[in-house]
Amino acid sequence: MKIIVDAMGGDNAPDEIVLGAVKAVNENNVDITLVGKGEDILRVFERHDIKELPPGIEIVNASEIISPEEDPATAIRIKKDSSLSVGLTLLRDGRGDAFVSAGSTGALLSGATLIVKRVRGIRRAALAPFIPNTTNGFILIDCGANAECTPEYLLQFAYMGSFYSEDVLKINKPRVGLLNNGSESTKGTSLQHETYKLLQNSDLNFIGNVEAKDAMSGACDVLVCDGFTGNILLKAIEGTASLIMSELKNVFYSNALTKLSALFIKSKLTGLKNKMNPDTVGGTALLGISKPVIKAHGSSKADAIQNAVKQAIREANCGIAKRFEDNIEAMKVSVDKNVAEL
Amino acid sequence: MKIIVDAMGGDNAPDEIVLGAVKAVNENNVDITLVGKGEDILRVFERHDIKELPPGIEIVNASEIISPEEDPATAIRIKKDSSLSVGLTLLRDGRGDAFVSAGSTGALLSGATLIVKRVRGIRRAALAPFIPNTTNGFILIDCGANAECTPEYLLQFAYMGSFYSEDVLKINKPRVGLLNNGSESTKGTSLQHETYKLLQNSDLNFIGNVEAKDAMSGACDVLVCDGFTGNILLKAIEGTASLIMSELKNVFYSNALTKLSALFIKSKLTGLKNKMNPDTVGGTALLGISKPVIKAHGSSKADAIQNAVKQAIREANCGIAKRFEDNIEAMKVSVDKNVAEL
Repeated sequence: MKIIVDAMGGDNAPDEIVLGAVKAVNENNVDITLVGKGEDILRVFERHDIKELPPGIEIVNASEIISPEEDPATAIRIKKDSSLSVGLTLLRDGRGDAFVSAGSTGALLSGATLIVKRVRGIRRAALAPFIPNTTNGFILIDCGANAECTPEYLLQFAYMGSFYSEDVLKINKPRVGLLNNGSESTKGTSLQHETYKLLQNSDLNFIGNVEAKDAMSGACDVLVCDGFTGNILLKAIEGTASLIMSELKNVFYSNALTKLSALFIKSKLTGLKNKMNPDTVGGTALLGISKPVIKAHGSSKADAIQNAVKQAIREANCGIAKRFEDNIEAMKVSVDKNVAEL
Repeated sequence: MKIIVDAMGGDNAPDEIVLGAVKAVNENNVDITLVGKGEDILRVFERHDIKELPPGIEIVNASEIISPEEDPATAIRIKKDSSLSVGLTLLRDGRGDAFVSAGSTGALLSGATLIVKRVRGIRRAALAPFIPNTTNGFILIDCGANAECTPEYLLQFAYMGSFYSEDVLKINKPRVGLLNNGSESTKGTSLQHETYKLLQNSDLNFIGNVEAKDAMSGACDVLVCDGFTGNILLKAIEGTASLIMSELKNVFYSNALTKLSALFIKSKLTGLKNKMNPDTVGGTALLGISKPVIKAHGSSKADAIQNAVKQAIREANCGIAKRFEDNIEAMKVSVDKNVAEL
């Protein structure tokens, strides 16, 4: 198993990316190809007192970097020698089993679609992060790749999320919910109304509309929505969690007794923080691409990169893209189906 | 000042509603008209050992109740003698200055629109809850009244939210943000693109697109969005807050030391819980109606009802509907404007 890692992407590149890769080869029985400016990567080893290139790690040079500020599609077209373009080309050519990047989400999406290509019949690739909740968490799909969606996109997201939940997360008959502003079937806009009917007539384990609040308490294993709404949901969760955690810090710092309390529960609180931290899980799967592509959080440190690599290994082992290919007919909305079902 | 209160709406009606009204007349220099089944209301006084009808409270009988399960528009049309219909009719006829209900949101919205009517020129009424955050909180508008919106609705929501923030919350030049999946002006769907241009050309203090996460850390005073997205945002905040609070409880219950810690920080933690609790603020303003209508949370207890009444007093004192009337021309998208700006 060989995972290709973009050494130049993310706020803490290249140091934390390289260190995460080293941890992964040492602990996770995997080979890693680091893609980026060779000299910069070698200097990371020097800085951290690693005398020799660790066995299992190879470096492929790429002279350019795509920054998050650049227009994704343009950057991918122009910067042929960027770490992202070179890494994705290696993946396409079979010189690795999966690709991990903490760089620009837009550029990764554009690059994966243009270079590695979508599974035939899949209309749009979607970002599918794992969201922790009171039970086993859930897959949110899409969470930002596609702001405007059709009911067919959402049907495909539902299938992709369900297969992912089953094959990678080992959930039996994943409960698929449609994110909506109420549980009644009449809720939402025309997008939700039409998608509801498609999901109801699919062979998925569709449990109906799910409100954001209920998703947080374990109502479903896969939560389907357009990328605009998914992004709002994800950012609201992140924003609220960080708001409460910072308020909590103020509570603990108020006086000597509260500081003492903080000491007693410190380790438990760290456990809670880890549970709420997306980095612990790994990265976000970009589903619908013909080979596994993982987006690690932009602020990833070494541990988060290692977790993203572990997730890439699980995905590559499952052959999730093959599962999409084998089931593509059920994932399409034919004209006949349209007439019969809508 | 007289506030009309729906005694039969909400999970804890009529007891908590009546007790909240009693607290308000005793503490907030206001008269209250309780609308509902007279006998049920009188029995609440008996149950709680209140011998006489407190001065400042009057009861208006209404024999029917609209439940949250009923279709809102149908219920309002058929149940002419419901507490909601009777209360809103009293408001329309000038027999009170504002109306408060913890009952069905949909029925309240339908009833207010049909009976009290919108301000002339306002296309849709919108729900505008106050959301606590790390700074002074913000007004979210719309949060569920209108799932499908046009750019003009959103322009009007922005104005209504801004006037409300200025007049009722006393915020100077409220910063108005458009909820979006990124801060760049190109983000979002066509709804956001067109609304962005309208807001940019308005005389509001428009600060651009705002992500859900940044709204939670104080990026704006008014956050504008369609009711579908606003509902997802609100429920995500509620769900995440309650998830973390319940996990926190587990942390504190783990052993003797952590239980001791809980004791030390109990009062401070209650403070945090109150800060995150929408009930502390009062109810949610239904803006765009020609007179003040307040939706209290369905689970409101006496304190929450009292706070909603206090909010109703503030709104009635400001004459917010008059402010909308006076500025209605700026809030309209004329054909000319459309051509020039879009």
